Amino acid sequence: MCNKKTTSSCVVQYHQVDQMGIVHHAQYAYFLEQSRIEWLQHQGVSYAALEKDGILLPLTDISIHYKQPLRFEDRFFVHVSLESLDGFFVTFSYRIEDVAKRIVATASTRLVFVDAASRKAIKCPKFLESVFHLG
Amino acid sequence: MCNKKTTSSCVVQYHQVDQMGIVHHAQYAYFLEQSRIEWLQHQGVSYAALEKDGILLPLTDISIHYKQPLRFEDRFFVHVSLESLDGFFVTFSYRIEDVAKRIVATASTRLVFVDAASRKAIKCPKFLESVFHLG
Amino acid sequence: MCNKKTTSSCVVQYHQVDQMGIVHHAQYAYFLEQSRIEWLQHQGVSYAALEKDGILLPLTDISIHYKQPLRFEDRFFVHVSLESLDGFFVTFSYRIEDVAKRIVATASTRLVFVDAASRKAIKCPKFLESVFHLG
Amino acid sequence: MCNKKTTSSCVVQYHQVDQMGIVHHAQYAYFLEQSRIEWLQHQGVSYAALEKDGILLPLTDISIHYKQPLRFEDRFFVHVSLESLDGFFVTFSYRIEDVAKRIVATASTRLVFVDAASRKAIKCPKFLESVFHLG
Repeated sequence: MCNKKTTSSCVVQYHQVDQMGIVHHAQYAYFLEQSRIEWLQHQGVSYAALEKDGILLPLTDISIHYKQPLRFEDRFFVHVSLESLDGFFVTFSYRIEDVAKRIVATASTRLVFVDAASRKAIKCPKFLESVFHLG
Repeated sequence: MCNKKTTSSCVVQYHQVDQMGIVHHAQYAYFLEQSRIEWLQHQGVSYAALEKDGILLPLTDISIHYKQPLRFEDRFFVHVSLESLDGFFVTFSYRIEDVAKRIVATASTRLVFVDAASRKAIKCPKFLESVFHLG
Repeated sequence: MCNKKTTSSCVVQYHQVDQMGIVHHAQYAYFLEQSRIEWLQHQGVSYAALEKDGILLPLTDISIHYKQPLRFEDRFFVHVSLESLDGFFVTFSYRIEDVAKRIVATASTRLVFVDAASRKAIKCPKFLESVFHLG
Repeated sequence: MCNKKTTSSCVVQYHQVDQMGIVHHAQYAYFLEQSRIEWLQHQGVSYAALEKDGILLPLTDISIHYKQPLRFEDRFFVHVSLESLDGFFVTFSYRIEDVAKRIVATASTRLVFVDAASRKAIKCPKFLESVFHLG
């Protein structure tokens, strides 16, 4: 199942840091999103192409647990894993680590397949089932 | 306990909307933050003054459940309630509603009191206990 | 011409401030955008409705001159004026002031009318000419 | 003078795109900022270290001219050049290009050296003069 787990590498940008001197908590949602998109690319799927094909993947749930702060210019890694495909929904889990392999945050997101035209929830399209199938 | 529950009113701004035509999920973290700050103001506490006094309140946990999307120029309401004060931690719950009183999202955040100088977690300072005391 | 000049009032939110303790310069683009949208509303035009009608107004140019910083919880005012309508283009100027009426920033933006379907620049639609007509 | 000109490579992230389906104009300020920070790194200077040493570099002026839109997953390049060092101020110019080498945007920013303790403008510190010296 190693193909269902990927790692993105990032560096904290200036504007992502708040006046406490740490990455603002809302920025983590962008980190998770970018790591999901890179996970899809690793499976051979372009999220841009998916949207053009009329398939949207909005979030239904997010939860993030913050363990250690990140600071400006810190490098960090987002490990993302497919957790489950359950009809309409797909769930990913995340572990963000710093260069010393300390856990910065853990997180989980649930997304729903949506038909762009009708804006209705749909089951995972057939051609994507292998992508979201757990080994 | 009505003084421990407040409501903020907002309108969706253009830049908060993504290419699906709905408010990007990360923006909700900003909505919750602003509603907490207004909750504090309603209790007579300025968060800016708190930080100048050396007390920080970073997040340890956030969870958001998205029910209905918001679109550009939609008005919405963030109802925020103090849930618990538990030593170092304070927990708030949120319900976001649209003008038709449909639930847009529910959420929960846990924050930790931190001493700005030492960057260590501290218990809720004495002078704030009445603010964070539940009824 | 007082109907071609409006003022928006805002308060600095926590996430808008960077680790220098001042509002991040990019946030001003959002302030200007929101003030333009409120200017349009004041002229009786909903920008959301305009987009649904297939008329887009992307930026071609922005310039901002920063004079004084804004800090968390500061109230400020964005004065926005229509400067010119020149075929495809409309230009607005802005003056941001703090509560002491000190100038925080001045700015200018040029926008272009675009047909949403063809993505081509168009002249200001007839029904909008009176809106963008200078006294 | 090739050491005074650097290029950063980026890919458009999902949250950077607005409901017109193009990168929101405010995001370009973040692109420019990140390219400046990478320019500094290329000169052997960490902006994080600079701030810890008490030297801030806030913006006094920004201007951006938008030529072609960027879309989700587009790769683009930010070419940044030092333009001038003039006492308190340093000016950079930018050219953003897509993979087909079409110009996406051009821009200019002026920054001012500020002493973090006094919050007063200062001349370019001696140890940085060679960095900001034009060939």
